Amino acid sequence: MKVNFSRLFGKPLKTTDLAHQAVSNPIGLAVFASDALSSTAYATEEILLILSMAAGAAWAGQGGAVFGLSLPVALAIAALLVVVTLSYRQTIHAYPGGGGAYIVARDNLGELPAQIAGAALMTDYILTVAVSISSGVAQITSAFPALLPYRVELAVGVIIFMTVVNLRGVKESGRVFAVPTYFFLVTMFLMLGVGFVRYLTGALPTAVDVDALRHTTLEPLTVFLVLRAFSSGCTALTGIEAISNGITAFREPRSRNAALTLSWMSGILVTLFLGITFLANQIHALPSETETVISQLARTIYGAESLFYLLTLAGTTLILLMAANTSYADFPRLGALLARDGFLPRQLTYRGNRLVFDWGITLLAVLAALLVVVLDARTSALIPLYAIGVFLSFTLSQSGMVRRMYRIGKLRPGEVRQGLETALTYDPVWRRQMIISAVGAVCTGIVMVVFAVTKFTSGAWFVVVLIPLIVAVFAQIHHHYKHVAQNLSLNGTRPELRVHPVQTIILVDDVHTETVELINFAKSLGHPWKAVHVAINPEKAERTCAKWQERIGEGELIVLESPYRYLVAPIQEYVSVLQREQPGCFVHIIMGQLVMDTLWEQSLHQNSAMIFDRAFSRIDNVAVTTVPYQIHRVE
Amino acid sequence: MKVNFSRLFGKPLKTTDLAHQAVSNPIGLAVFASDALSSTAYATEEILLILSMAAGAAWAGQGGAVFGLSLPVALAIAALLVVVTLSYRQTIHAYPGGGGAYIVARDNLGELPAQIAGAALMTDYILTVAVSISSGVAQITSAFPALLPYRVELAVGVIIFMTVVNLRGVKESGRVFAVPTYFFLVTMFLMLGVGFVRYLTGALPTAVDVDALRHTTLEPLTVFLVLRAFSSGCTALTGIEAISNGITAFREPRSRNAALTLSWMSGILVTLFLGITFLANQIHALPSETETVISQLARTIYGAESLFYLLTLAGTTLILLMAANTSYADFPRLGALLARDGFLPRQLTYRGNRLVFDWGITLLAVLAALLVVVLDARTSALIPLYAIGVFLSFTLSQSGMVRRMYRIGKLRPGEVRQGLETALTYDPVWRRQMIISAVGAVCTGIVMVVFAVTKFTSGAWFVVVLIPLIVAVFAQIHHHYKHVAQNLSLNGTRPELRVHPVQTIILVDDVHTETVELINFAKSLGHPWKAVHVAINPEKAERTCAKWQERIGEGELIVLESPYRYLVAPIQEYVSVLQREQPGCFVHIIMGQLVMDTLWEQSLHQNSAMIFDRAFSRIDNVAVTTVPYQIHRVE
Repeated sequence: MKVNFSRLFGKPLKTTDLAHQAVSNPIGLAVFASDALSSTAYATEEILLILSMAAGAAWAGQGGAVFGLSLPVALAIAALLVVVTLSYRQTIHAYPGGGGAYIVARDNLGELPAQIAGAALMTDYILTVAVSISSGVAQITSAFPALLPYRVELAVGVIIFMTVVNLRGVKESGRVFAVPTYFFLVTMFLMLGVGFVRYLTGALPTAVDVDALRHTTLEPLTVFLVLRAFSSGCTALTGIEAISNGITAFREPRSRNAALTLSWMSGILVTLFLGITFLANQIHALPSETETVISQLARTIYGAESLFYLLTLAGTTLILLMAANTSYADFPRLGALLARDGFLPRQLTYRGNRLVFDWGITLLAVLAALLVVVLDARTSALIPLYAIGVFLSFTLSQSGMVRRMYRIGKLRPGEVRQGLETALTYDPVWRRQMIISAVGAVCTGIVMVVFAVTKFTSGAWFVVVLIPLIVAVFAQIHHHYKHVAQNLSLNGTRPELRVHPVQTIILVDDVHTETVELINFAKSLGHPWKAVHVAINPEKAERTCAKWQERIGEGELIVLESPYRYLVAPIQEYVSVLQREQPGCFVHIIMGQLVMDTLWEQSLHQNSAMIFDRAFSRIDNVAVTTVPYQIHRVE
Repeated sequence: MKVNFSRLFGKPLKTTDLAHQAVSNPIGLAVFASDALSSTAYATEEILLILSMAAGAAWAGQGGAVFGLSLPVALAIAALLVVVTLSYRQTIHAYPGGGGAYIVARDNLGELPAQIAGAALMTDYILTVAVSISSGVAQITSAFPALLPYRVELAVGVIIFMTVVNLRGVKESGRVFAVPTYFFLVTMFLMLGVGFVRYLTGALPTAVDVDALRHTTLEPLTVFLVLRAFSSGCTALTGIEAISNGITAFREPRSRNAALTLSWMSGILVTLFLGITFLANQIHALPSETETVISQLARTIYGAESLFYLLTLAGTTLILLMAANTSYADFPRLGALLARDGFLPRQLTYRGNRLVFDWGITLLAVLAALLVVVLDARTSALIPLYAIGVFLSFTLSQSGMVRRMYRIGKLRPGEVRQGLETALTYDPVWRRQMIISAVGAVCTGIVMVVFAVTKFTSGAWFVVVLIPLIVAVFAQIHHHYKHVAQNLSLNGTRPELRVHPVQTIILVDDVHTETVELINFAKSLGHPWKAVHVAINPEKAERTCAKWQERIGEGELIVLESPYRYLVAPIQEYVSVLQREQPGCFVHIIMGQLVMDTLWEQSLHQNSAMIFDRAFSRIDNVAVTTVPYQIHRVE
C-alpha cells in the first residue's frame, strides 16, 4: 500500500520561496501578536485563581476585597510590560536580522548563556502549545459544557490537526493569520466597550450560576500569596518577544516598522488585560473549572443566549489556536539554530522537502500532547510550568543587551567592531539604553525568581530541573560533534592520495540469476575475485558448490565453515586473513540484495544486506558493495 | 551500552550438538507426556463447569444427579482416547522420522490439508501456552488466594520467564524434565490412592467452603449441554500427539519404543482422568473462580493444612508449566517446517546462533501473553478456543493415514513406492489398520464439529475464523516465494557472464579525512571516477568546491542543484543521465559512512548511507558501495 504523502502534506516548496514577501505593519501585528494577545484569555483568570485561595469562593464579605487586589496586581504587570517593551525595542534596532534570546545571548554572553536561553525557549514553546490549546478548549467547553468530559481528547485532536497542517507547510501565513487576530480584537474590544458602557450606566449585572472552585482550606492573605498571583498574571507577557524574532518579515525600514508594531502590540495588550481584569472584578467573576473568566464576562455582558457571546468565545479560541501555531514555526526554527551550532542533532537543520522542519514539528507535537494528557488539559495545572522559561530568556536577552551597550560605550566615536552576528558601532545614547535594558533584565530576573519560588511545589520544580538537564544534553552533543570534527579534519593540509591493492570477494548464498549479476559486476571491475559461501547448512553448501561448477564454472567458490551457524563471523575472519596476507589492502565485499516492490514482500526475505552492512562497517579498510536485484510483482 | 546477551541467553551451541542423545522410555515419557498429562488438571473441572449450568451451584436435590453425569461423559472421552491412541501407534510405525499432523497430511493428502493442519497446530500451540499457564497460576492462587488479583501479572511473568529460558536454549531437556513429570505422577497417584482408601473406608468428606460459581439463569439439561460438557472434557486429549512428533528422540528400535511409551502414557492419562472425575464427584467438588477442582480434591483428601495438599498443587503447577514449555519447542519447529516449505517467512528456518528458533519463540510468547491478558488468565474463557485445532489436526493426520493405508492396499506384495517422506511397502494388515485410522478420524472429526458448534458463541468462532485466515496468509507467502524463485531461476541453463563498462561516482558531502578514504578506494579500483555533491545548501556547496580545489585538486567535483532540497532525487537523475550516455553500463556509486561506537552517537549523524541504499536499490544496473569510516570515542 502506498500512501500519497504529498496529498496529505502538500506539494514540495522551493528554497527560493523562503524569501518572505515583506508584510505591512497591520499584517505583521496579526502574524506576531497572537501569542502575546492570547495570554489575556487566561492571565486575569490565573490571578483570580490564586487570590481565591484566600477569598474562598464567595464574593460575600471579605472575599470581594481580596479579589479587588487583582487590579493593583494587574497594574504592576502592566508596568513590567512597558519596561520589557522598551528594552525589546532596543533589541529590534540592534538585531535587524532577528534578535531572539538565543542569538542575543550567544552574541553577547557566550555559549553557555545561549544554551540556557535555548533550553528555556524550547520548554516554553512546548508549553505555549499545551497552555494555549488547553485554554482554547476551555473556551469551547465553557460554551458547550457537554464537551467538558472530552477536553483531553479535544486538545489532543487539535494538536494532531495543527501538526498535520504545519507538516504541510503554511505558505499563506500573513493574510490568513490576519483574519482570526483581527476577529479576536474586534470581538474583545466590542465586549469591553459594551461592558464599560453598561458599567458606567450602572446596568452591568454580576455573574451568576458559576460553578466556582471551593477551597477546603483557606490560606491567609500573605505577601507570598500576592506574589504568587502576580507571577501567575505575568503569563500575560509571554509571546511579547515574537516580533524581535521576526524582524526580517517586515517592510523596510524593517527595524523601525517592527519596533512600531511592538509598541502597538504592547499597547493593545495592556488595554485588553487591564480592561478584562477591571470588568471581571465588577461582575464578580469567579475562577471555575467549568467556565472561563472570558466566558463569564461575555455571558454577563451579552447574556448567554446572545450571538455575541458565542462570537467572543470563538474569537478567543481562534487567537489561542493561532498562538499555539506560532510555536510550530518558532520551535523548529530554534531547533535548527541550535543544531547548526552543534547543540542538537544535525538532522534538525535539514528542511525536509517542505519549507518546514518536520522533525521539530513532530517533536513539539509529541511533547505538548504528552503534557496535555498528563495534566488533563487543565490550564491552571500547566501555568506553573509556563513563564519560567520565558522570563529566563527575557533576562538573558536583556542582560546580553546590557553587555552589548557596555561594549559600545567602550568604543571610540566612529570605531566599528565586528561581533558574531552584528557589528558594534559607537552610539552616544549607549548609557541610557544600557540602563533601560538593565532595568528590564533586573525586573524580569526578579519575576523569574518569584515565579520559581512561589510556584515551585505546584509544578515549577519540573522546569527548574528540566532546563539544566537540557543544557547538559546540549553540552554532550556539542562535545561529540567537536570530537568528530577533529577526527575528520585535514588540519589544513593537502592529504596524500594513495592507491591500495584491492581484494574482491563475492558473497554467494545460492546460484541463480542474481548471482550472475554479482559476478558480472565483479568481472566488470576487472579485479581478480573469489566467491565465498558461508556453510550454515552443510547440505546446502554442497548443493551450491555443485551448482557453481555446473552453471558458472569460472573462478573459485570458497566454502567457509560455520559450526555455530553464524552468518557474519566466518566472513569477518576470512577478511582478516586476506588483510594479513596483503597488508594495507582494501577488501571489497560484493553482495546481492533482492529488492521487492512492497514492504511486506521485502519482509519475507532475509535482508542479510542490512545485517552484513552493519557488521562489516566495524572493520577497517573494507568497502561493502550491494548490487540490488529487482523482483517486480506481476499485477 | 553493550548488553552481554550471551550471559542472558547462554553460550552458542554447535550444529552437531543437535544430534540427540537417545532417551530411555521412562525419560521419553517424562519429556513428551507433560502436555497430555497436564490436561487432567483442568479437563474434569471444565466438564463440571458446563454441567453446573444445569445444576446451579448446589449439590442439594437434582444438582448432584446432574454432576453425576460427569462420570459417563468422562468414560466416553476415555473411549475416544483409546481409539486415538491406537491410531497414533500406527502413525509412529509409519513415520519413524517423526509423524506430526503437518508431515502426515502433506505426505498423504497434499498441500492444502497440510497447510490447514499447520494452521490448526500453530493456533493450538499458542493456546497450550495460554491455557497451561493460566491453569498453573490458578493452582497457585487456589493455595494462596491473596495472589488472586495478580493472576494476569503472574501468568505474563511466567511467560516472560519461560521465554528467556527457551531463548537460552534448553540443552539439558531429558533428565531435568523427568523430575517434575514424575513428581506430578507421584503426588497425583498418592492423592488418588489416599482418596480411594478414604472413599472405600467411608472416611471421605465432601468439599466445604467453596466459593462456587452461581449461574443466574439455569439452563435445562439438554443433549446439547451434555455434548458441550463432553467437548470441554475432550481437552484431556490435547498433547497426546507429542510422542509422534518426537520419535527420533527414542532409542532403537525407535518406533517400538515410542509406541510403547504412547500406550503407557495413554494408560496413565485415562487412569488419572477417570480417578479425578470419580473422586471429584464423591467429594461434591464445585467449579469455582477461586479454587480449582484439583485443589478442592487435595484439600478434602488431605486437609488444607497438610503438606501433601501443597505438594499436590506444586506437582500440578509444575506439570502445567512443563506442558507450556513443550509448545516452546514444538511451535518454532513447526514454524521452521512451514518456512522450509515456503508457507512462512524463510527467516524462521534460521536457527539463530542458538539451537532454538528465536523468532518462533518470541512470536509464540507475544501471542500467548496477548491471549492471557485479553481473557484475563481465566482457563474457562480460554478453553472454548482450545482443542478445535487439536482435533482438526487429529482428523487430518488420521485421514492421511487412511489414505496411506489405502494406497498400500493398492500395491502388489513386495512392491515399494517412494512417497514424499517415506516409502510405501505392501503390508497385508493394511485393511485392519485403515479401519482403525478411519474410526479415529471419524470420531475426532465428529468431536471437532461438536466442539465448534457447542462452543461457537463462547469463543470457538474466533478459531473458526482464524484458521482459514492463517491458511490464506500461508498461500500468499507461498505464491510470493514461487514468483521469486521463477524470477531467479537459471532454467537449468548455463548463463553467459558479461563484462559491462563501469561508471564510478563518489558522493561527497564535505572534504575531510573520510572523503580522502573514499577517493583512495575509487583510485584503487582503477576506473575513472567523478565526485558528486548535492547542493542542498548552495553556500555549503560553494565552500565544498573551494575546499576540493585546495585540498584534493584531482578529478572533477560535479555539483548537482537541488532547489527542493531533495538529497536523493538529483543523484537518481544524474545516474539515469549516465546510463543514457553509455547504455548497458554499471553505475558504481561510492559513498562514505561514519561509524560510531555507540548507538546514541550514531543517531547524531545523518546516516544517509541507509537512505541512499534504499533509494538506489530501486534503480537497475547500479552497485552501491559504502566505505565505512570509524570514529572511536576517547575514553
